[in-house]
Amino acid sequence: MFETLEVGKKIQPNDFDELQQQLREKLLMAQLDLADRDYPVIIVVAGLDGAGKGSLVQQLNEWMDPRWIETNTFWEHSDEEESRPFFWRFWRRLPARGEIGIFLGSWYTPPAQAAVNGEMTAEEFTLYCKQIESFERMLTDDGALVVKLWLHISRETQQKRLQDDSPHRKTGPRGSDRPYELHGKYDRTLEVSEQLILATDSSHSPWHLLEAEDQHYRDITAGELILEALLHRAGRPPAVITPHIPTTERITGPQPTVLESVDLSAKLEGDSYSEQLQVQQSRLRDLCWRAYQQKRSVVAVFEGWDAAGKGSAIRRVTRAIDPRLFRLVQFAAPTDEERAHHYLWRFWRQLQRDGRCTFYDRSWYGRVLVERVEQFAAPAEWQRAYSEINRFERQLVEHGGILLKFWIHISKDEQEKRFLSRQNTAHKQHKLTEDDWRNREKWHEYELAVDQMVSHTSTRHAPWTLVAGNSKPYARIQILETFCETISSALDTP
Amino acid sequence: MFETLEVGKKIQPNDFDELQQQLREKLLMAQLDLADRDYPVIIVVAGLDGAGKGSLVQQLNEWMDPRWIETNTFWEHSDEEESRPFFWRFWRRLPARGEIGIFLGSWYTPPAQAAVNGEMTAEEFTLYCKQIESFERMLTDDGALVVKLWLHISRETQQKRLQDDSPHRKTGPRGSDRPYELHGKYDRTLEVSEQLILATDSSHSPWHLLEAEDQHYRDITAGELILEALLHRAGRPPAVITPHIPTTERITGPQPTVLESVDLSAKLEGDSYSEQLQVQQSRLRDLCWRAYQQKRSVVAVFEGWDAAGKGSAIRRVTRAIDPRLFRLVQFAAPTDEERAHHYLWRFWRQLQRDGRCTFYDRSWYGRVLVERVEQFAAPAEWQRAYSEINRFERQLVEHGGILLKFWIHISKDEQEKRFLSRQNTAHKQHKLTEDDWRNREKWHEYELAVDQMVSHTSTRHAPWTLVAGNSKPYARIQILETFCETISSALDTP
Repeated sequence: MFETLEVGKKIQPNDFDELQQQLREKLLMAQLDLADRDYPVIIVVAGLDGAGKGSLVQQLNEWMDPRWIETNTFWEHSDEEESRPFFWRFWRRLPARGEIGIFLGSWYTPPAQAAVNGEMTAEEFTLYCKQIESFERMLTDDGALVVKLWLHISRETQQKRLQDDSPHRKTGPRGSDRPYELHGKYDRTLEVSEQLILATDSSHSPWHLLEAEDQHYRDITAGELILEALLHRAGRPPAVITPHIPTTERITGPQPTVLESVDLSAKLEGDSYSEQLQVQQSRLRDLCWRAYQQKRSVVAVFEGWDAAGKGSAIRRVTRAIDPRLFRLVQFAAPTDEERAHHYLWRFWRQLQRDGRCTFYDRSWYGRVLVERVEQFAAPAEWQRAYSEINRFERQLVEHGGILLKFWIHISKDEQEKRFLSRQNTAHKQHKLTEDDWRNREKWHEYELAVDQMVSHTSTRHAPWTLVAGNSKPYARIQILETFCETISSALDTP
Repeated sequence: MFETLEVGKKIQPNDFDELQQQLREKLLMAQLDLADRDYPVIIVVAGLDGAGKGSLVQQLNEWMDPRWIETNTFWEHSDEEESRPFFWRFWRRLPARGEIGIFLGSWYTPPAQAAVNGEMTAEEFTLYCKQIESFERMLTDDGALVVKLWLHISRETQQKRLQDDSPHRKTGPRGSDRPYELHGKYDRTLEVSEQLILATDSSHSPWHLLEAEDQHYRDITAGELILEALLHRAGRPPAVITPHIPTTERITGPQPTVLESVDLSAKLEGDSYSEQLQVQQSRLRDLCWRAYQQKRSVVAVFEGWDAAGKGSAIRRVTRAIDPRLFRLVQFAAPTDEERAHHYLWRFWRQLQRDGRCTFYDRSWYGRVLVERVEQFAAPAEWQRAYSEINRFERQLVEHGGILLKFWIHISKDEQEKRFLSRQNTAHKQHKLTEDDWRNREKWHEYELAVDQMVSHTSTRHAPWTLVAGNSKPYARIQILETFCETISSALDTP
């Protein structure tokens, strides 16, 4: 695969100056045009050590307007990154729409290093490549332009460059963070690189391999590839895959939804409620401290009908937990920084560290609920959200997170009762808006959306809990019990 | 000072329920009202260990709508926090306008602990209190409501509560992060607490001391104090201190500004330029690696006239530095998240870690330049910005940062020449906007703003460098040389 990259492609110094002048003007223009576009550009610069990835990035920064480029590197230790799912570190560095993010060292570095050093099994390697593939797919589905450059040099050149000890190489962190720079690993590195490239080369984010022996050729060609990609992407929007949307009403006529399985007659009387409340809360309190000790994070999602009692249920949970251990985040309209990123970005950014709890009052499921019903999201967007969400949650769980998802269910009549009572209680009126009445008219559409949501996203590693909400005391206890059961069974017994 | 807090204030359990019902409704109303206000609320919960700070915060979270309250704690290690100036960790947690941030453990914890353990000299302690005072002053000047609660309990009560070993106390991190919980330190703790309270009690952010023996009294009183503060603040905006604004024109007639001291005739010829460029760039490259090794961060601010050559000068600098070591940030219009915070917040949030470089293309000085001249900022705002900026920069330097500030100066004629040439160069036209011509008409006002800016903020620890920009080659070399000189003299010789 790499033979074609050792044929001595060159550009003469004097040609270079003229070429770079043309290229630079075009790149600047393309960058200017990009500023008004609604998609980000992600440039991955990968390849062999000594191939000059750093110099190329500097060249790009010089050609283009560095104010709209962010160069991201991940070679420095950060315990805030390490105490979250692996991809969090990349999510928080993703460029906003209209901007360019260069990733020098990226999601490709760890598997490459690990595989070369034999620290990763073939299965792990394959799995990892799949994750990369779906990560990039998610970004490109959202409109992002992903340009991946692989820089290759011959064994001799690498030897030469790695021996060359310019001062910054002495002072720099190389070696430490580049175990596979060590001699004798060249062949193995090529082998792994080829696997990595083959496994992650796709129509939506293809690899560009280029010969990096001659720095002039390397830089001009890289710049040209990026320019082409920018122009091509600007030329036509990516084909939107319009999925098959199952009609919500079947010819079989209306059928029961999963919500019908919830026994709304379930009740709990005053006294036994307060008893159980105390028991479960103090149990939860201790469990959260144990989870903290075991560095297991707890992520809980609260969804439900308007007036289902989400807020008060959440308070019964948070009240039990030391405020130092949890963060409750609530999602109203996204900020413009959030709007400028993939819809999952705003949820990733709130994720607390290992050992802490993150409670989401409304969550990423808005995509397949309100955004679907109100048509804020296109069918293609909410349809693919199911798998995006499943992958996201899988990462949380695989990182050791304990995930809980609650849908608090109430009957349509119960909701009406509560709406009316809100109208008549001073400090509750603010909770009732026109929207609430409007959403209520779409009750059945929401029912079907919930039904599909549960069937698509209630997985083995992240099941939904449907809460019987007509009796608030019952619902609260059910939620607290579920918390305690799930956490304690996930923790190592002390 | 604390005698009055050991008199046995109490609330009977049955009164409590009624009181909390009233209080809760009022707090919710006040919180609702706050949502539309343009200021944040910062609640500091401090006091003796065992006084029930945590329980109080949980009570507040339950009374109010926890979705609009963020509880912030700082007991967990984070190398990203520790590798930045101390207050960065608080800046990034400041609530947005209309929201409430509860600080449980705050800027008061470290000095208290250190002083009790004799790890801090009286001078350091005093200095620290001054920093707190000006930090809070900056927030309240910006409109923030700061409510500080100090919870007191008697020696006996503390003993009892600290001995009590409920499971979460066993599992919790207490002890480790609370050295002064150790017995025998009660008296010393009171002593330090009194000093701390006296030194940081002020009209703009007063302390509220309350007896915490009885939890019902503690919670109700705390809630009441917060409610009062909210209503009072909502009732009338804080008195804006309108400072004396020196008239820009003196009766002495126009006088030379500091900019006249810049020799704009300075030139540099082609060959010696390219030589020096190479020399300085490779020198800078190595210096940045050494700074990285010594964990010294470099912070550089670039300001100057439109078309002064900021961008191209910055590129000559960034080109010299390994992209893994620097981040260049540029400031256009603030995002809505940025607008919702103190104007310095957006600059704090971009600050890179120790050993890294942060380059600001335009900076916090916009406050006393464009925002002043264009009257985006009120006189009181830009006037107090001088001292806010000096304190901010002092923190950078005291943390070990190496700070550089460049104003690139050109003559009015030179600017016109460059504007016209921009009009005639395809890939430069985008750089010229109507604003540029408009700003040009205000040349003299900007001159005076720069003159005052330099005289107020060119301090011993953070001097300005005025760059002679009529000759771009000369300016670039002057900047690179200043970089090298400043960094190398700041570093320990290897």
